[in-house]
Amino acid sequence: MSACIFCGIVAGTAPATKVHEDDTLCAFLDIRPITRGHMLVIPKLHATNLDDLDAALGARLFALGHRMAKALRRSTLGADGANLILNDGKSAFQTVHHVHLHVVPRHTGDIRSFATGMLFRGRVGSQPDPATTAAAIRTGLDRLDLEESGAKDKEQHA
Amino acid sequence: MSACIFCGIVAGTAPATKVHEDDTLCAFLDIRPITRGHMLVIPKLHATNLDDLDAALGARLFALGHRMAKALRRSTLGADGANLILNDGKSAFQTVHHVHLHVVPRHTGDIRSFATGMLFRGRVGSQPDPATTAAAIRTGLDRLDLEESGAKDKEQHA
Ligand SMILES: [Zn+2]
Ligand SMILES: [Zn+2]
Repeated sequence: MSACIFCGIVAGTAPATKVHEDDTLCAFLDIRPITRGHMLVIPKLHATNLDDLDAALGARLFALGHRMAKALRRSTLGADGANLILNDGKSAFQTVHHVHLHVVPRHTGDIRSFATGMLFRGRVGSQPDPATTAAAIRTGLDRLDLEESGAKDKEQHA
Repeated sequence: MSACIFCGIVAGTAPATKVHEDDTLCAFLDIRPITRGHMLVIPKLHATNLDDLDAALGARLFALGHRMAKALRRSTLGADGANLILNDGKSAFQTVHHVHLHVVPRHTGDIRSFATGMLFRGRVGSQPDPATTAAAIRTGLDRLDLEESGAKDKEQHA
């Protein structure tokens, strides 16, 4: 497993700008982003593809992707949409063989279609100022947390 | 909600070739498939986008997508990979505003890249013989069920 770059990121032996980390999952910036803030969400435990991934861990992985899509809308990046993409298997254009879910922020005014939008991978180069980008995404996560704790308070007082 | 085509499919008032249905979710063939067996997985309860979708229901939606990717590998369609794609919001090229997860079967030998592969949407026309395609996918679901019940038996006898 030492040859797996994503396992290296989990272990901290390969560099990455992490946006989120918990016991089972990790989210970090893609180094060949389609748009600014393009993230990868991965399970910490190595799984080559979806066939190899535990169902409960898969549900957590996608749940974090869902959460990230909501966070991006609330973040100072100003996204108003996102593409969630999981390429499962070589024939589906999976290039790193550790399961990963792409979360790609989108903005109104991006006029390209989904297909042509995907052709520009890496064209924005490495993430411009990754630390700032990660911090911007975290503003959205914080706002989402606040919103949800507010909703819970309302429920409790209802 | 009567204007929502996917709510119509759930209600049975709009036509679709369903592959799976349970209390909360529905999976049916896309009428503008990228590849044969291209499915959409949707929540039965209308949600415009991920912001609008309950977290637990979202986890179920993705879990079914995960399951479908595993089923495609075991099906007589002979897929050895799949793309799972959720386009969230207009700026992310969402065109039907009821949350849907694309599950696109892939085969080794499809030489196109992910991006150019997406340009061919609808080119295979409507699903060739949708009933046969749906039945082929179900062979994979059946095999997955069998495999999992076999694994459970082993656990119980261990
Ligand atoms: Zn790995
Ligand atoms: Zn609907």
